[in-house]
Amino acid sequence: MSTATQPNPAELAGLPAADPDWLGRAIDEVAELTEPGTGVTRLAYTPLEREAHTWFAEHMTKVGCTVRTDAAGNTIATRPGRTDGPAIGTGSHLDSVYGAGRFDGIAGSVAAMEVARMLDAGDVETNRPLRFVIFAGEEGARFGQACLGSKLAAGLTSPAELDRVDRDGVTLADAMAALGFDGRTAVANPWRPEDWAAFIELHVEQGSVLETAGLPVGVVDLISGSTRVELTLRGRPSHTGGTPMLGRADALAAAAECVLLAEQEVLGPTARGARATVGRLTVTPNSITTIPGQVTLSLDVRDVDADRQRLLTASIVAKVHAAGRSRGVEVSVRVLGDTSPVVLPLWLRETITSTAVDSGVPYRILTSGASHDSQMVNRVTPAAMIFVPSRNGLSHVPEEFTSSADIATGVDLLARSMLRLDARLGPAG
Amino acid sequence: MSTATQPNPAELAGLPAADPDWLGRAIDEVAELTEPGTGVTRLAYTPLEREAHTWFAEHMTKVGCTVRTDAAGNTIATRPGRTDGPAIGTGSHLDSVYGAGRFDGIAGSVAAMEVARMLDAGDVETNRPLRFVIFAGEEGARFGQACLGSKLAAGLTSPAELDRVDRDGVTLADAMAALGFDGRTAVANPWRPEDWAAFIELHVEQGSVLETAGLPVGVVDLISGSTRVELTLRGRPSHTGGTPMLGRADALAAAAECVLLAEQEVLGPTARGARATVGRLTVTPNSITTIPGQVTLSLDVRDVDADRQRLLTASIVAKVHAAGRSRGVEVSVRVLGDTSPVVLPLWLRETITSTAVDSGVPYRILTSGASHDSQMVNRVTPAAMIFVPSRNGLSHVPEEFTSSADIATGVDLLARSMLRLDARLGPAG
Repeated sequence: MSTATQPNPAELAGLPAADPDWLGRAIDEVAELTEPGTGVTRLAYTPLEREAHTWFAEHMTKVGCTVRTDAAGNTIATRPGRTDGPAIGTGSHLDSVYGAGRFDGIAGSVAAMEVARMLDAGDVETNRPLRFVIFAGEEGARFGQACLGSKLAAGLTSPAELDRVDRDGVTLADAMAALGFDGRTAVANPWRPEDWAAFIELHVEQGSVLETAGLPVGVVDLISGSTRVELTLRGRPSHTGGTPMLGRADALAAAAECVLLAEQEVLGPTARGARATVGRLTVTPNSITTIPGQVTLSLDVRDVDADRQRLLTASIVAKVHAAGRSRGVEVSVRVLGDTSPVVLPLWLRETITSTAVDSGVPYRILTSGASHDSQMVNRVTPAAMIFVPSRNGLSHVPEEFTSSADIATGVDLLARSMLRLDARLGPAG
Repeated sequence: MSTATQPNPAELAGLPAADPDWLGRAIDEVAELTEPGTGVTRLAYTPLEREAHTWFAEHMTKVGCTVRTDAAGNTIATRPGRTDGPAIGTGSHLDSVYGAGRFDGIAGSVAAMEVARMLDAGDVETNRPLRFVIFAGEEGARFGQACLGSKLAAGLTSPAELDRVDRDGVTLADAMAALGFDGRTAVANPWRPEDWAAFIELHVEQGSVLETAGLPVGVVDLISGSTRVELTLRGRPSHTGGTPMLGRADALAAAAECVLLAEQEVLGPTARGARATVGRLTVTPNSITTIPGQVTLSLDVRDVDADRQRLLTASIVAKVHAAGRSRGVEVSVRVLGDTSPVVLPLWLRETITSTAVDSGVPYRILTSGASHDSQMVNRVTPAAMIFVPSRNGLSHVPEEFTSSADIATGVDLLARSMLRLDARLGPAG
């Protein structure tokens, strides 16, 4: 069991340290690929996202990898091992929400790139092939469902899901087709479990546990699931002056009840740790002197308990229906996305934590509130996650920040954990 | 006092009845002047509004009027009387809210046009000049303040008000300038009270009192005032999954409290009859997976009691500040518009009601919840209002509807009331 508790000097022999300067520059470079406006907007399945994948592919080719794109648009760079067979993977995503920061997904993507560079620079040989993956369409901001590319890779997507639409009514299938990807082919061709040994993703925490604890890394035990519904509330628009208070069917007043009901529901003692948020809300006609006739809003419920996640959602929706009835406001519900929480395998997590101990890197076991590609990948092959600190816990906003030094610490741990895992697994066959 | 209780056969001698078919066609015609989209959008101080004024002017020239435009952009058609001197006026407005119906303002505008045609067709002579007025910028939808043109005409506008901006940051002064009107000249040149004897406006009710009572017309005693404020709530945007419920500063949750607080405030027993509405609400960044960082909303408070109108507004704003404080959400307030309620003069109202009695038209005295140009005009010359029924009480929506027959009944009453008033006033000088 020496490999489990001590670093294997051989595996670290030629491995240089991660370069924080390069990591910072790479993050700045990819941040340039954005729609105009505040923050970074590089949405799922758009030409901008593809540009970022191309940027990744070019780097990976330079450091000795063979790059291909799977049917779902996930870009996979392979570094051969001494033997062929099930590979060890790492990677993250390069798409973003609207008005995003520069680190969510990017940190793990440049980490993968830097690991490949470090191995190449150190002429490090591995038993297994290593694969560096950029997943397509991780953010749910455009189509309402997160982890589109990894969900396709994991064989968890039904053909009907290709019909989901963005704000402009463009279907996922059409968005993919415009980029040269056939959605049905992607649905029919998930990754094969036999090609994979394990997967480790580095990501920014998107919370403030590590910063508060003053720790450089976290290792994830659970990833929250999320249920997302769109509620449309239809009342009766009319003149704000001519219409008495008691004759109204104000869709925004019903929506306001929904926002507060959702909050109230997860603040109860039995829902400890669950989160419910109305992040998007649009009023029609949105005029000062017209009672709102229609409101469309999104409800996002997250939990680490799969049943409670669905029960909380159903309970909030039922209460919104009741509030709507009492106001003469019609409520309709559409499920945008639904993903169960995932428990990540203990043995893989311990490979990381023992590497951290041996490297003198203090860590903490964390639960992820956000969704991640790793929860989909975990259906194909054991997955693990390394978190690096997020300043003030902020994420999905331009103020999102993680220092290059913190990312470099995470990259060193990632590279060493991959090598330790490779040593443990030994040659394939 | 025979003129007060009996129709004067002479004054009605050659007067034909109002033509419902023409009224319907005229309303259809002007509805064509709209921005694309659902309903009619013909905003204050836009080229589309001016097109509608030109359409009015062309008609009025054909029926023997002299047309001019005042410094504020109000279009005034004059039909000479036997004597010059203080004139009797009628008219309304041709601008609209976003996604409006086809009757608010238009009914009173085509009524004025039809009265002029009827007088011309009947070769009716009057003691006084008659003036037919289309006010510019009555709707507050674009600049937040209603009755811009009539407020300028009434000398109630300060130069600072020319700096109010629309959604795109265009000032009122610039919008006026683009159409050839100088705001400062308009501020400095209100109408002169000595030019006017009285003003009667026909308008759709925008409520359901007349329809419910089965009455063809209403005569207005009071016009509600309105106070309009814009509240900006600034919280802290972050990831909906990564951020625990208790560490949040959710601007939309604070805004939801505001919507319900406003409603609650005017449902109390001491606020009977007041109305408070949040009609416009905009969320930033408005993404499913980001806690709302900022919300901007409009609050519109209407009342027939001037003090209570301001006290209710102040009370709602104070409670929103408190809600914001408890949530870590910063609240800032900007007054968009503030107009006091108006009591219309009894003697002028009685000219209309006695005409209605004599014409066999059943009526009811009504309070107007909406703002109207007449409340501004009343500061220059005594004003009165005739309401015609609104189907289902709907207004400021595409479903707004008043039948041509109902408008024609109102036009007949308007024409007869103007002639009765002219007979009462007698020749000028």
